[in-house]
Amino acid sequence: MQQILIAGQWRDANSNNSFQASNPATREPLANEYPVSTWEDCDAALTAAAEAAVGLRSISGGQIAEFLETYATEIEDNADAIVDMAHAETAYPKPTRLAGVELPRTTDQLRQAANAARTGNWSVPTIDTNAGIRSQYGAIGPVAVFGPNNFPLAFGSISGGDFASAIAAGNPVIAKANSSHPGTTELFARCAHQAAQSTGMPAGMVQLIYRTSHPDGERLVADARIGATGYTGSRHAGLQLKAAADAAGKPIYLELSSVNPIVILPQAMEQQHEEIATEFTGSCLMGTGQFCTNPGLVVVLKSDATDSFIAALSEQFAEAPVGTLLSSGVESSLESNLEILVDAGAEIVVGNTPADSDRYCYANTLLKITAQQFIADPETMQTEAFGNSSLLVVTESMDEVNAVIACFEGNLTGCIYSATDGSDDAAYDQIAANLQSKVGRMLNDKMPTGVAVSAAMNHGGPFPATGHPGFTAVGIPGSLLRFAMLQCYDNVRHDRLPASLRDENLNGELWRCVDGNWTRKNIN
Amino acid sequence: MQQILIAGQWRDANSNNSFQASNPATREPLANEYPVSTWEDCDAALTAAAEAAVGLRSISGGQIAEFLETYATEIEDNADAIVDMAHAETAYPKPTRLAGVELPRTTDQLRQAANAARTGNWSVPTIDTNAGIRSQYGAIGPVAVFGPNNFPLAFGSISGGDFASAIAAGNPVIAKANSSHPGTTELFARCAHQAAQSTGMPAGMVQLIYRTSHPDGERLVADARIGATGYTGSRHAGLQLKAAADAAGKPIYLELSSVNPIVILPQAMEQQHEEIATEFTGSCLMGTGQFCTNPGLVVVLKSDATDSFIAALSEQFAEAPVGTLLSSGVESSLESNLEILVDAGAEIVVGNTPADSDRYCYANTLLKITAQQFIADPETMQTEAFGNSSLLVVTESMDEVNAVIACFEGNLTGCIYSATDGSDDAAYDQIAANLQSKVGRMLNDKMPTGVAVSAAMNHGGPFPATGHPGFTAVGIPGSLLRFAMLQCYDNVRHDRLPASLRDENLNGELWRCVDGNWTRKNIN
Repeated sequence: MQQILIAGQWRDANSNNSFQASNPATREPLANEYPVSTWEDCDAALTAAAEAAVGLRSISGGQIAEFLETYATEIEDNADAIVDMAHAETAYPKPTRLAGVELPRTTDQLRQAANAARTGNWSVPTIDTNAGIRSQYGAIGPVAVFGPNNFPLAFGSISGGDFASAIAAGNPVIAKANSSHPGTTELFARCAHQAAQSTGMPAGMVQLIYRTSHPDGERLVADARIGATGYTGSRHAGLQLKAAADAAGKPIYLELSSVNPIVILPQAMEQQHEEIATEFTGSCLMGTGQFCTNPGLVVVLKSDATDSFIAALSEQFAEAPVGTLLSSGVESSLESNLEILVDAGAEIVVGNTPADSDRYCYANTLLKITAQQFIADPETMQTEAFGNSSLLVVTESMDEVNAVIACFEGNLTGCIYSATDGSDDAAYDQIAANLQSKVGRMLNDKMPTGVAVSAAMNHGGPFPATGHPGFTAVGIPGSLLRFAMLQCYDNVRHDRLPASLRDENLNGELWRCVDGNWTRKNIN
Repeated sequence: MQQILIAGQWRDANSNNSFQASNPATREPLANEYPVSTWEDCDAALTAAAEAAVGLRSISGGQIAEFLETYATEIEDNADAIVDMAHAETAYPKPTRLAGVELPRTTDQLRQAANAARTGNWSVPTIDTNAGIRSQYGAIGPVAVFGPNNFPLAFGSISGGDFASAIAAGNPVIAKANSSHPGTTELFARCAHQAAQSTGMPAGMVQLIYRTSHPDGERLVADARIGATGYTGSRHAGLQLKAAADAAGKPIYLELSSVNPIVILPQAMEQQHEEIATEFTGSCLMGTGQFCTNPGLVVVLKSDATDSFIAALSEQFAEAPVGTLLSSGVESSLESNLEILVDAGAEIVVGNTPADSDRYCYANTLLKITAQQFIADPETMQTEAFGNSSLLVVTESMDEVNAVIACFEGNLTGCIYSATDGSDDAAYDQIAANLQSKVGRMLNDKMPTGVAVSAAMNHGGPFPATGHPGFTAVGIPGSLLRFAMLQCYDNVRHDRLPASLRDENLNGELWRCVDGNWTRKNIN
């Protein structure tokens, strides 16, 4: 039985149950057994994290940066083992996905977070010299991170975006592994623990448990010792955690589900349907469709070009290799959610059949409905069939397009393809603001699956895509603000202020808003 | 029966019930009758607000600024009527409080909000030129505002900080009057409506209802057409609204309760107990103690100086005029909450008796407990007795002080008085970080009742003082972020970007973070 990491020690869990991950490419269980922790483990982690939060008060942003950078190097030193384990647990291809893309993204995020911690350029120092009031964002306290199944490295509980931003904001993290890849999470925890020790971090700064009961998970996010929670995963489980955290007044940041609508305007369809079809197939089937920003809903207008577009997609979906899905749960959810759509009247364009029986997978699937079908039951028609599938909504007019958009739930992204010659501009103007009010990121002429780690990124959006439309889960420094509280100093004596709020600029690199103007200068 | 303001029209409410405000100085009901709206009114207001939100998309920040400034002038033109009505409904003194302080604060806030709307310097425009990604905060949609009883002007539902910041962020407001001062709210609504008409705002941008049933209030904040809610008031009613909004995934910003602890360190007590006693009495009894930041809990260390301090307070509280309370509800809550404290073992230093019977009031009251009593039942001992009262916690040591602080709930403010000669510095260092983690604003040597409208202000704090520790209800532009969603533009064509995110700086005054650096320059 694998050990958990609590208060700086690898130790046996308090558990009365265990689980194994499985190899999606073989449906066979993997060797290691992982404990399901009882509340005792959660309680011990919370106590250690609360102590670490106190310890972190006297640790500078520069020291936290050193930890994050050491951790990134540690990951690179152990890249082969991590990639091998992640490959076994997820079946994602090694060179093109895990080693080539996701691991570098992970270490890059950690280093960007280190930079934010070192400069302090996430904390929005705001100074009113006349009133003698100074404020900035500061650590919120221990953060629980529940990572998703689909990015074992870059969104991993103890390696990904939530982890990096919670730590960079000065908080300890209690990581709850995703049950699909506990071994990968354990390897990261070993690297993180190593780096924490060698850079003198408090014992409870990085901790790992593998799984708890649902009631214990709810108790964890609502505990008085918790500062905030980051959760990425299924809507059902996320809403249970949200209810518990909300009732206790504890911030929880959720990334729940999104069908990421794409609208293709008539002239773009006429002029570019071949290119868009190829782009769409690539985006939709990439990673077997298991991206938070996978394009799961495509709104088109009836035309000959649209018929050609659908025919091309049908051919491409049939011909493309069928990717492996992450787990038996993903496989059965995909099948049952597609069944919900078909039962509600969606027509099968291609796929919707089981594929190989020796691995987790399902045929690349494309369904089709009319605008009237969508509008008649928008909730059902927005069922997210997570995986290598998408739903086409064929409309008769731009008014119907707008009516479909008006029924959208909150989404992470929304995209409009329009002709480059301006011939779709009136149609664009008719729908753009409507679509934008429903999404966190608006795209033009580009599939949503690339999520750049940029300061300007918003990986967020209105409920139920996330729990609050004002926060992003990707992008540094913005994503740190989720794990921060606003702290104000009124008439506090100068030598008692945090270094970042004193007259002298901390390191010359810190941007501060002084009497309404942004500056890196000292205050005279 | 007074009329409500819906969709740009003053009209009769759909109601099957009504209420009157009363004059706190006489306990007599005031003449006007106000309707309790049914759901039909809420529904009509929501529909009109949703339409106004669409209309506001094509209205610039400059036009919104014009509305806010015109409204401020309109208020000044009607100042006498507003002050007279507010005086009748609240018994607050006219020249020293309403006309001299609160009304200028109200118009100043509206003008600061106008400035934020005009420059755009609240929306944090963030541009990544390499990635082609640009983002900023934008309007969240219709905002419901539930104002408190204690600031009829500066926190009024249709005149105060929530209103100003929601409007400046580009949102329509549905104001729910506080039942203590519906007439004042109506006068503001008339000014706001006038200003909205003369500056060409959408019909449903400012709307007013007076009261609803509790279930309709919960339905309102959870409605699909709502963007967010601002609530200031009692903890019980606020938590009911929070549960409803949370379940629907709708942001709600609450200001619920706060005892605003003050710690007086030993040498400060020794050297300055007379001055601090005078300051404290002034702060605690100002506005009959009906401030959100009223100092309701004072932690001191046992000493002769402390005995003198308490004796001085006792004398001052006994001698000070007994102010009038806002309503019979405030009067009875104050009495019953003091009873809870006394029943739990608090000793009466002074007061705790009814005062004049011809107006709402209760004797200036000071209670006293030991640290051990506090620690034994911290929840009860933090009962907020809103009004002209405070609770002294007499400790034996700095360790006891720290143990008391460790039991604190979230508060808006926390203050430490320490000697100016440095002799309290070690004691300060022992407790400061502990106290700060529990409060939104940390003060030194100053009572918390002044809440400057400063960009650096935080009028917020951890639950249960508010619903989220990352937001402030006072201070511009920060308070606007509560009523905003993050909007990102990825590869969106340049002429389709909002003006504030295009290469040319909108007005030369807009600060933008371009590739990590803050600048007012154009992008080349």
